[in-house]
Formats: sequence, structure tokens, C-alpha cells
Amino acid sequence: MTPQITLYTTKSSPFGHYVEIALREARADYSVYEVDLVNKPPWYTDKVNPAGKVPAISYGGSPAPADAPSPSSFKLAESLVILDFIIDIFPESNLLPIDPVARASTRFLLNLFSTTLRTACMSIAAFRGSPEEVLDAIDKLQVHMPAPGSGRFVTGDTFTSVDAVAAAYLLRFDRCLERDIGSFPEGEGVKAYHVLRTSERFTRYRAYLATLAKRESVKASFPEVSEKVLAQLGHFWVGNRAFA
Amino acid sequence: MTPQITLYTTKSSPFGHYVEIALREARADYSVYEVDLVNKPPWYTDKVNPAGKVPAISYGGSPAPADAPSPSSFKLAESLVILDFIIDIFPESNLLPIDPVARASTRFLLNLFSTTLRTACMSIAAFRGSPEEVLDAIDKLQVHMPAPGSGRFVTGDTFTSVDAVAAAYLLRFDRCLERDIGSFPEGEGVKAYHVLRTSERFTRYRAYLATLAKRESVKASFPEVSEKVLAQLGHFWVGNRAFA
Repeated sequence: MTPQITLYTTKSSPFGHYVEIALREARADYSVYEVDLVNKPPWYTDKVNPAGKVPAISYGGSPAPADAPSPSSFKLAESLVILDFIIDIFPESNLLPIDPVARASTRFLLNLFSTTLRTACMSIAAFRGSPEEVLDAIDKLQVHMPAPGSGRFVTGDTFTSVDAVAAAYLLRFDRCLERDIGSFPEGEGVKAYHVLRTSERFTRYRAYLATLAKRESVKASFPEVSEKVLAQLGHFWVGNRAFA
Repeated sequence: MTPQITLYTTKSSPFGHYVEIALREARADYSVYEVDLVNKPPWYTDKVNPAGKVPAISYGGSPAPADAPSPSSFKLAESLVILDFIIDIFPESNLLPIDPVARASTRFLLNLFSTTLRTACMSIAAFRGSPEEVLDAIDKLQVHMPAPGSGRFVTGDTFTSVDAVAAAYLLRFDRCLERDIGSFPEGEGVKAYHVLRTSERFTRYRAYLATLAKRESVKASFPEVSEKVLAQLGHFWVGNRAFA
């Protein structure tokens, strides 16, 4: 029997989102438990992740409800560490190539996309950074995005962990800037959204975003119109404006 | 024939040091090219790492001198990505366990040690942070360090990539604080060194440091008395005091 997998996450988290995309790409049988970060249940820090953050997973162990996980299941936190675990237990998922040189090149891009996009995301979500940082981050990565019209992914014809990470951040940027959700001054998000959606500078990005948005694993894990997720993001991100 | 490996590094870099420790643990046949970061040779950014940082490696390709690397060799940068590549090409090195669950637990610790120690290192090296940050970082990690007298490593009897990373940072902290090398105000380093060396709070750390310092791969790659390395660190780190 395949060991059970429970993903503890919150739909607004990009970190949890790319883990879920990876699980879907791997055709894993998993369940999701939505953790309320505002009223965090005490069992979560006691029994799943002592650091209290999402995402985390439980793997294997005796059958148990998600909110009373079996002590015999393996608990793992840190989204990029979880991503590596999924890659290891589902080698046929193609989330990373098997050949060591191709694998290292993909890991290099995974590190580049993940650090660049996370920095920009934290900045506009929490630190009252300008949406210009998002534009610069996307522009820096465009050279690695596939040619418009190719329908391909960052490393070629295969959807890898780089695309999973890219999708989680880029979709959030797109939806949030459109609705001016962020810790930046009011109006700046919509302005940046307009640039991303119309400027010639971002042609390659727009084509890649469209390819990602069509991917089944991405669509299914981040519904096109998810007012609940956007409301969560609005609550946290716009709330940070108050600390200006 | 085994593909050639050239490590481009500078001995003062902890990032380059843990890559070199990993290569030694893997019993890899490799050569080292010391890159002068102050007068960086133009071929380095042109032919090895466009980002201009160390460490980087070249792997395979036609035979060529290190300062004129073959275009057919594979070039890779980012120390943690290089570490993963070494783990992949030398699976028998035990730098990471093979079992996916043990592997994920070790990766979790690798991520924890690496982020915690890098943050403290950057702080005292470049950002005029207090050596207290080093003490706090070490203390936070002590719970994962082996019991004094056990002669063991972080995950048990096997020296893993976690120990490689720990050794590179902890040895630098020890040698640098002893000589008051850092961007902190004069005298603070020596004070912190005294605490680390004498306080009961750091018993576990001292035992682990001694175990690491005895390890052949560590000794050979960071000589006990390396005045050249310390002079380099002094030049960069103490130089940053001037920006206060």
C-alpha cells in the first residue's frame, strides 16, 4: 500500500502551492488540510510542525485524521525540502531530470527562480516594497522563460519543479497586482499590472504565464477565480500597509 | 575515464570550503584554482561563472588549463547546488542517505544549518552585526549537535553534508572571533570567543567543533594555522567596519 500523504497548507501560500503542484504532477494520492494561520490550532505546532509554519506534510504512519496525525507518520517542513522529498519518492514525475548534469542545471534554475521570486514576493507582501521589484524580478528571469508560441517550459518540453515554483509566484503576482493587493501604497499594484499586461518588455513573461495557467496541476490547485484566496491575501498583505 | 573536476574558489569562503570538504569526503579527484576576488581575472566571468562569484566548478570536457577552461566542460555555480551535484555523482560518499525519509530529514537539517549559519556569518562579516548573533545561531543548533564524548556527527555515525556545512562556518567563526576578525566593533569578537570557549552553555558545541576539526577532509581543506586565509578574512571583514 502506498503511504498516505497529508499536505498541511493554506491556499494563499505560494510555498504550499508549489508543493501541491508537485504532488499533482507526481500523480500522488494526497489530502489537503487547510491550516488557519490566524487562529492556529495548538495540535499543529505540537504534532506537525514545531515552527508553526505552512506547508508541512505527514507521510505514512497508521491511519489517522489530519487534525490528530499519527505519531508514527513522518513529518516534514520547509517547502523546498518537501519538494526534494516529492522528487525522491516520485522519480518518474520528471520534476527533476535523472541525468546528474541536466539535474544540476535544473537545480541551478530552481534556486534562481525560487530565491528571486521569493524575495520580490516577501517585499510586496510584507515589507512595503514597490511592485517595481516584482517587475525587475520577472524581467531578470525572462531570459530563462520559453519562447512565446512554443508552449514549452523553462528547461524544454518537460514541466519541472522550476515551473511549479514559477507558477505559484507568477499567478499570485498577476492576480494580486490586478486587484492592488500588497503592502505597497494604494494604486501602485494596478499600475504595475498594467505594465506587465501591455508592455512589450514582458511579452515572453505573458506567454509563459499563459502556458502555466493552462497546466492542469496549476489550475486544479489555484482556481482561476478563488475569492477566498484573494481575500486571505488581501487581509495579510494589504494589512501590512498599516505598518508604514 | 572519470571526468575532471576543477573547483574555483577562494580559501576564505565558507561556501567554497564546504564544497571542498564534500569533494574530499567523496574521494573525488579534483584540482583547485584560487580565484583572486580583488583583481578578478576577466576570463572567470566570461568562461566560468557569469555572476563572478565563488565557488564554481567545471566538470568533464576536453583537457584544458584551469584558467582557460574548455567550452565543452559543464560549469556550475551556487555552493548548495554544487553540493547536490557532488551528492548525485558520488552516491557512495554518504553525504546524504539514500532512503528517502532519512534523506529528507538530513536535507531539513542541511537547510537549517546552512540558513542559520550563513545569516550569522554574513552579519558579522559584512553588516556590522554583533558576535552575539553567532552565539545565538550556534546555541539554536546545539540541540542537533551530537552528545559530547560520542565522537558522532549531526545525524549519527556518518559524516554528512550537514557536517560539511557546519565545519566550514564553525571553524571560521572560531578562528576569526579569536583574532577579533569581523565587521563588529573592536574587541567584541574576542569577548564572544571567550564565551564560546569557556561557558557551560556551549559544552555541546565545543565537543562537536573538536570532532569536526579532527576530520581529515576538514583539516586538509582548512589548515589549522592558515595565516593567508585569516589575512584574507581580516582584509574583507575588518574592512567592513569602515562603513559604520
